[in-house]
Amino acid sequence: MSNGFRARHLAIVGLGLMGGSLALAMRAHAEHISGIDHDERARAYALKRGIVDCATDDLHAGVNRADVVILAAPVRVIIEMLQMRIGSYLRSNTLVIDIGSTKQDIVDAMASLPIGVNAVGGHPMTGKENGGIEESDESLYRSRPFVLCPSRRTTPAARLHALAFVETLGAAPIEMEAERHDQIVAGISHLPYLLSATLVATIANQAERDLAFWELAAGGFRDTSRLAASDVTMMGDILSTNTQAVATLLAQFRMQLAMLETMLIAGDDHRLGESLEPIRRARKEWARHYDNRR
Amino acid sequence: MSNGFRARHLAIVGLGLMGGSLALAMRAHAEHISGIDHDERARAYALKRGIVDCATDDLHAGVNRADVVILAAPVRVIIEMLQMRIGSYLRSNTLVIDIGSTKQDIVDAMASLPIGVNAVGGHPMTGKENGGIEESDESLYRSRPFVLCPSRRTTPAARLHALAFVETLGAAPIEMEAERHDQIVAGISHLPYLLSATLVATIANQAERDLAFWELAAGGFRDTSRLAASDVTMMGDILSTNTQAVATLLAQFRMQLAMLETMLIAGDDHRLGESLEPIRRARKEWARHYDNRR
Repeated sequence: MSNGFRARHLAIVGLGLMGGSLALAMRAHAEHISGIDHDERARAYALKRGIVDCATDDLHAGVNRADVVILAAPVRVIIEMLQMRIGSYLRSNTLVIDIGSTKQDIVDAMASLPIGVNAVGGHPMTGKENGGIEESDESLYRSRPFVLCPSRRTTPAARLHALAFVETLGAAPIEMEAERHDQIVAGISHLPYLLSATLVATIANQAERDLAFWELAAGGFRDTSRLAASDVTMMGDILSTNTQAVATLLAQFRMQLAMLETMLIAGDDHRLGESLEPIRRARKEWARHYDNRR
Repeated sequence: MSNGFRARHLAIVGLGLMGGSLALAMRAHAEHISGIDHDERARAYALKRGIVDCATDDLHAGVNRADVVILAAPVRVIIEMLQMRIGSYLRSNTLVIDIGSTKQDIVDAMASLPIGVNAVGGHPMTGKENGGIEESDESLYRSRPFVLCPSRRTTPAARLHALAFVETLGAAPIEMEAERHDQIVAGISHLPYLLSATLVATIANQAERDLAFWELAAGGFRDTSRLAASDVTMMGDILSTNTQAVATLLAQFRMQLAMLETMLIAGDDHRLGESLEPIRRARKEWARHYDNRR
């Protein structure tokens, strides 16, 4: 199937790390790639490096001739585009795929697109610590899971078209309902972000009375706190479109933490060790599979 | 001062990553290095690679001729050695430095050493994801903070001797009281471990009903969960010798988490963003300093 995908005109809305990397990976599979972004610097960079064939800040001009449109923007920008404007700019039979980090609100908004426009929700499980078009990497999507979620504008043909797109990108498509996707990413991504941010807030608070908290922090803190450096606009959009699932996972987390803390405070080292050992094994086993997959 | 340190006979109790790396880094500064470990495989490896000059599982035989003894074992093993046995094996004027991860209980136990034996608590802020003597690396300590905590067996001469040892190792000595050290590591190391373990427990629990939690977990989860793979015996020792400080930091963490969660559930995106942005900046600034220091 992966050899079957070709776009005549691929439009990418949002020239950041994700959009730029997608353009590079699809270079050989699209006759023409247009990039749409408000940021003049990002447009100039994408043009200069040949990441796109043309670049504009005019959404209408950028997408109206496209047969495939990728929405690579923060979640609430995607929702606003779907609800307010983009539908009337698109030709019939255009395939729209977004790559926003939450899916329920987005596939709901896809239902407001005109009948005849095809749309599938997408979420590639990939990224980098630092964003920006300058970080674009044609291998960013390769071998990584790419979730596809059906919307009311996903026809059977659109579904196959989206699967072919993801396979051509080199990613591994995984189809699931948006609600299930959002529950999963609440656990594996949004909860870790909140924990990471809260850890940094806790240490920053302690460091106000003793700077040695910052001075002695090392590799363990580095890893655990990395997600706290994520873009706040992006994370705010994600959290506000997945509040219930995140709150549910937070409640689960608190319950697990309370169990460990009870053993700790009671000095029940034996039970604490018996609880921590299967956790250690689960993490090791997951990491082994994850590293093998990459 | 760093050129002034020489040991005639350096004894290292515990031939793991930390002890092995320390032996390699001190090779040129000790006439003879003995290694003491119960694990025959670790002793054989250390001998074969020339990490130590002799290896034994007999604590008395390994340390009784030493002028410098490094205790590189889990915290409760160090405490037990200090309280039960090692004092009577050591000659007067021997310098003992431990490298256990908590310090108050250890420097308390150092007070039970015979008068004439010198002892300083130590904690190098370094390590690797995987332990074991096979991972030994002579640069492991280089440029990393090495905390030194005084005990009742720290004479002014012993303090200078320990400072010279740390500088010869290539590390950056930081002197502080054990209580302050333990509060700091509760925040930057033990709290992150508990959060990491609790995150993994939460996801493992969810994955029982939906394996896609494991399948979709990616880089963000990888970093945040890494500490959960730490050795459980080592972490159990650490937590059980620092319970009060860890519980205090956990309470602080819960308070910070409740503030963010309240904004999230209330849908107060503006305040949430205003809270997350300074956290992001604090993490970025810390990481910049940390990376420059390495």
